[in-house]
Formats: sequence, C-alpha cells, structure tokens
Amino acid sequence: MTTEHPIFSPERPEDRRFMAAAIRYAMRNVGRTGTNPSVATLIVRDESDGRGPRIVGRGVTALGGRPHAEAGALAEAGELARGATAYVTLEPCAHHGRTPPCAEALVRAGIARVVSAAADPDPRVNGKGHGMLLAGGVSVTPQVMAGEAARTIEGYLTRHRLGRPGVTLKLALSRDGRIGVRGGGQVKITGPTSDAQTHLVRARHDAILVGAGTALEDDPRLDCRLPGLGDRSPARIVLDPHLRTSPEMTVARTARTVPTMIATYQSSDAGRRAALAVEGVSFVACVPDPETGRVALPELLEDLAATGITSIMVEGGATIAASFLDASLVDRLILAEGAIEIGEDGLKAPIDVDGARRRFDLLRQDVFGADRWFEFSCGDRL
Amino acid sequence: MTTEHPIFSPERPEDRRFMAAAIRYAMRNVGRTGTNPSVATLIVRDESDGRGPRIVGRGVTALGGRPHAEAGALAEAGELARGATAYVTLEPCAHHGRTPPCAEALVRAGIARVVSAAADPDPRVNGKGHGMLLAGGVSVTPQVMAGEAARTIEGYLTRHRLGRPGVTLKLALSRDGRIGVRGGGQVKITGPTSDAQTHLVRARHDAILVGAGTALEDDPRLDCRLPGLGDRSPARIVLDPHLRTSPEMTVARTARTVPTMIATYQSSDAGRRAALAVEGVSFVACVPDPETGRVALPELLEDLAATGITSIMVEGGATIAASFLDASLVDRLILAEGAIEIGEDGLKAPIDVDGARRRFDLLRQDVFGADRWFEFSCGDRL
Repeated sequence: MTTEHPIFSPERPEDRRFMAAAIRYAMRNVGRTGTNPSVATLIVRDESDGRGPRIVGRGVTALGGRPHAEAGALAEAGELARGATAYVTLEPCAHHGRTPPCAEALVRAGIARVVSAAADPDPRVNGKGHGMLLAGGVSVTPQVMAGEAARTIEGYLTRHRLGRPGVTLKLALSRDGRIGVRGGGQVKITGPTSDAQTHLVRARHDAILVGAGTALEDDPRLDCRLPGLGDRSPARIVLDPHLRTSPEMTVARTARTVPTMIATYQSSDAGRRAALAVEGVSFVACVPDPETGRVALPELLEDLAATGITSIMVEGGATIAASFLDASLVDRLILAEGAIEIGEDGLKAPIDVDGARRRFDLLRQDVFGADRWFEFSCGDRL
Repeated sequence: MTTEHPIFSPERPEDRRFMAAAIRYAMRNVGRTGTNPSVATLIVRDESDGRGPRIVGRGVTALGGRPHAEAGALAEAGELARGATAYVTLEPCAHHGRTPPCAEALVRAGIARVVSAAADPDPRVNGKGHGMLLAGGVSVTPQVMAGEAARTIEGYLTRHRLGRPGVTLKLALSRDGRIGVRGGGQVKITGPTSDAQTHLVRARHDAILVGAGTALEDDPRLDCRLPGLGDRSPARIVLDPHLRTSPEMTVARTARTVPTMIATYQSSDAGRRAALAVEGVSFVACVPDPETGRVALPELLEDLAATGITSIMVEGGATIAASFLDASLVDRLILAEGAIEIGEDGLKAPIDVDGARRRFDLLRQDVFGADRWFEFSCGDRL
C-alpha cells in the first residue's frame, strides 16, 4: 500500500556526505550569530549527466543572526533551486514576521526535497517547519546526522530547553592531575597548540567566565588571540560576589574593546562599582546559595540566558570548576593535560582524565605536542 | 457548605489601599531590573490595637533583578512576618534554583495571607506560585488591581506573551498636528515640563529607538537628563539599515557611557562598521521587509527581546512612527501636544490626538504649562 504524500522520505546514499559538509560550513559562524543559531544550507542538484550531485547554492546564518542560512543559499542557487535538494542543519523556521519563514521560502523556490538534521526546540518551529514543507509538496528527510548537527547549536538548544546557556568547562591539568601550585602564581601547563585550541574554543562561545580569584591572581585578558579571529573574542564574565575586581585590572581596562560583565551581590561596594562602570564594565546581579554561601549558579545562568547568552566557557579556577561540576551544570568538559608534573604541592583538579572517563562520554581525543586533549559530553541533556 | 482550604479568599477593604502603595513602590525600579520584572512586596500586620493594619516590611526587586522583592520585605519584617499579610504586585515565583522560590519563602516565614495583583506569564510560575502558597496553608487573594500592576511590568509581560519588547511610541505634536518642518531642522514643540516627563519615561524603558534620519538631522543625545536619574539612561538603538551613522555623531561618541546599538543590514559598509565598533557601538542584524523595502520590524523586535530588552521607547521620526503604527507594534502611545502651530509647511504626524482617541483607550491626560500630554493604551494585548 502506498500513500500519495508519504510523511517522510528515506535517506539516500549521498545525504550524509552533503550534511557533513553543511555541518562543517555551519561551524564557521558558531559564536557569531547572536541569539539565532548558526545554521548552514546547501542546495544540491543531480543533473543526471553522470557527474553526480553537486552544490549550486550555499548559505550560513549571517553574522549577528540574520538573514538566515536558507535565504543566502536560495539566492545563490537562483533558478537552479527548482527541483533541487536542500540540506539544512536545523529544521527551517516556520513563523511569520514580515519576511517569509524559511520553510515557505524553500517551497516558493521550488525545492523538491529537504534533508534536515537537528530538530528546533522553539515551539514556533518544532515540527511546523517540516509540516509547512510537506504541505507545500516538498519531500522531507529529517534527522540526518542530527547528533552531529546538534553539537553546532548546543547553546541554542540548551537555552531553549533548560533556560540556561550551554556550559563548557575547560581545565588545564598537569600529568599528575594538578591545575597549579597551591597558594601562588600561574604555572604554564600546556604548550602552544593546546593554547591555540583553547582560543579557538573561546571564539565559539558567547562568553568566558572566571572567578574573581583567577582574575586577581593572573590578571588575564581572556580574549581570542588567533590571527584573524581577534574580532571573535567572547564577552567576559567575572564571578565576583564581593566585588574585588579593581578598575586597574586588564578585564576592566579593556572593557571598551571586549565586553566585561561582573556578577556581584547587591551589597557590593557602590564606589567601586561606579569606578568600574566608568571603564565600561557592566553588572549582573547575583544572590548567594543559602547552603554553600557561594553564588547561586542556576539563578545566575538563568539571568545570563535571558540576556541572550547561549554559551559560556568556564575557565577557572578550581573552586568555580568544582561548583559547576557539583551542580551538574557542565555540558561539555575539556581537559588539556600537559606533560609536566607539579607534585604534592600542586592544587588538585576537581576532576582528572580518569574520573572524567568514568563519569562522561569521550567525544574527542587528540595529541598536541606533548599535551593530550580530551573533550567529554557530560550527560544527555540535549 | 464550607471547604477546609478555600481556593481563594475574598478581598478585604484595606487591600486596594496597600496594593496601590505596593504598585507605586514597584515603579521605583522600573527599567532598572534587567530581565526580571520590577515587583514590590509590602508586609502588613494588624495588631488589633485599634491602630489598624500597618506596614512592617517593604521590598522591591533589586537593581539588576536580584534579589527578588519578597526576600527584602521578609528580611525587614523578620519575626513580624508570622501571621502577617503580604501584598505582592506579581504572583510570587515558584521555580527552584539554589535559592528557595519566593512562594516557598513566604510560606516558611509564616505569612498567613498573600494578596497578589498581576499573574505571571512565565510557565514556570503561572498559577504555580499561588498553588505553592495554598499548599503551604497560606490564604491567597489574587487579581487585586491586576490591571494597574500589569502596567508596571508591561515589557516583561509583552516579552513573555508575544516574544517581543513592549513598545511605547512618543510623538511631540504642534497644535495643528505637525511634528516638524518639512525638509529641515528641529522645531521646539513642547515646554520644559513635557521634556522632563519625556526623560522620566525614557528612564523607565530598557531602550530608546530612533531612525537614522532623526539621528543625522538632530544629532540627539537620547539620554535621561533628570537630576539624580542620569545613571538611568536606557540603551539607544538607531534603525540604520544602510549605515549612515558616522563615528562623529553624539550617539557614537558617547557609546561608552550609554550603550548604543545600530540595527543594520548585513550588506552595510564594513569599514564604517569597524570605525563605529571602535567607539563602542554594537550592531543588531536586520533584514528588509520584502513588501515595503524598509526594515522588517517584527524580526528586529524578536531579536532585541532575545537579548533581554523588554521595553522600547520609539522617539522618531515620522516614518519610523508610521511603520510601528501600521504594523500594530505600538502598545502605548504618548502624544505631547505643544501650543505652537507649524502650518502647512509642517510635516504631518502619522497620528494626532483626535485620531488616537478614536483608535485607542486614553489612560492619562495632563496639562504641562502650555502643553497637553496624552497617554493611550493601544489594544488589549496583555
């Protein structure tokens, strides 16, 4: 028995290849599309001339979030879109403003088939984008490489589903599981390739978060210093409930170039607050956790998500890292393990590679010079 | 027939008086509580000593949004909260982070009765706050002066219900319904009291929006210049699709003091964009409305709401005002009518007092010197 409009059409052999290319293309703007997710669209035609299917239009969500990917790809394909297949890394949007929703634009352009990857958690889209395509006579193959595509929009998904930004915790560890010397000073643990990788990860997040202790001890810049990616430095958030950050510190002095927010209690010093505000620092209100006396992290993350921050990279120190881990607020854990040993004097990391292997799923493992680099997915929240 | 726990308890004679006081108190922090609404709580006891009920604790949402109002009021009341009545302008929150939800805090403090005004559209609260109170043995009287309270949190309600900020359109009109002289220059239409009122309205919004034309012609500061309220200047948004704003203009030069965002097309000049970014200007991506060729306003408002902006005051010029009115995107209309007449040379306002009276509900009417001031509510969207 056949139906005239099958609900979904089956995957074809070339689908994963083109979707993988679309996912790589979507990575290009991750961290640069504001509150819209970075999505890619490839428009592919098979002319049956023996050369096989080939790409006739490409689009990725523009910097700042608009236009969406589909618009650019359809514009590039022009008339070639008619009868072609569109690969989209996220279900096309279905809600009307003054511009047509992407699902409608694909129908109007004569696209014959849409292959999509991730499902959109936004209730104005979820399933409706696919429904609009099917109603327009387009055949739809959903869920192709959905897991891989979801990783390009982790923050967007987490913000919609959990009401908080996606959190990546990154720790640099010595071979013996220490993150520094107790009571003093920065220790260089990892080499230049790991450091460049760290900067690349920064560029893909909306914000970097450190504790006031780290800010005071190391006076870090917390920016992205990869050639050509300097303009992709995320905002900086200093968790500083008692406002110990001073206007002379680097994060304050450079707040006019890279946005800096300090999360602090209402009770913190008004004079210091004013002096920091003059430098361009902004403030996020936070409250203490009544049990631990530390900053209540879920409340802080909720407020940050409400201001449009979809992803945060937590970079230190040990107390902050432990707080996020204890509260199960880490989605992705990166451990960069250097070759050095610090010894018994060292400050123990709240988690080491063996511990992470037991608790979490290893996504990626690399060797960068003398360093080992591990990325774990912490639980199936998405 | 009686039930042991009546669902809701009836209003008492003094309830409206105390709720009105709470609403006035909530106004204090409107525009200064980030993505959290400005809410007030009064805790009231009647000692039956013939002196009548009196206030023993007051709280308003702290600057930046946390702590919430209930926490401050309960702290001030201390043991006097036991057996007292709490007046809250918004249903107390019910969702757990690390701090107890406000509904739970009221129960724990021994509050006997809660009188609440507005309902919370957040699905994590809506009805659940009242449910948590009732389950804790607190009697609840909801919806007391709900409409008046809703007006203190209009932006918050609009953002949750419609996914866009609340919009106030303000126009200064001559007695003959003109907003300026065609083809040139600013005309002083209203007097100092109206101007001070305008600055007060500014202070209560998260952002002020003007078109590039107004920015270029008038080079306005768009800040709040009332004594003592200088730190309450909202962010400035310039609707400038083709990026005509120059780094020498006041909104750009002062972007380090008062945040300035320019809504512009992806195609706008990259060099100029970089020069403005150096001054501290940030950018919001927008797209054209395919029918009118102007900026698609619903898409822009959706993205602004996603960055945490809950209320926008639109201040000009005529084209922008007409666009917002035509798109039914105005929630509140303010017309400040001066005594002067501009005559036939004048630029006609997109709406005048008589037109507004026919279309909208008059909320407030005042006389400020020679000026008349009108505030209209534009449709029952909340």
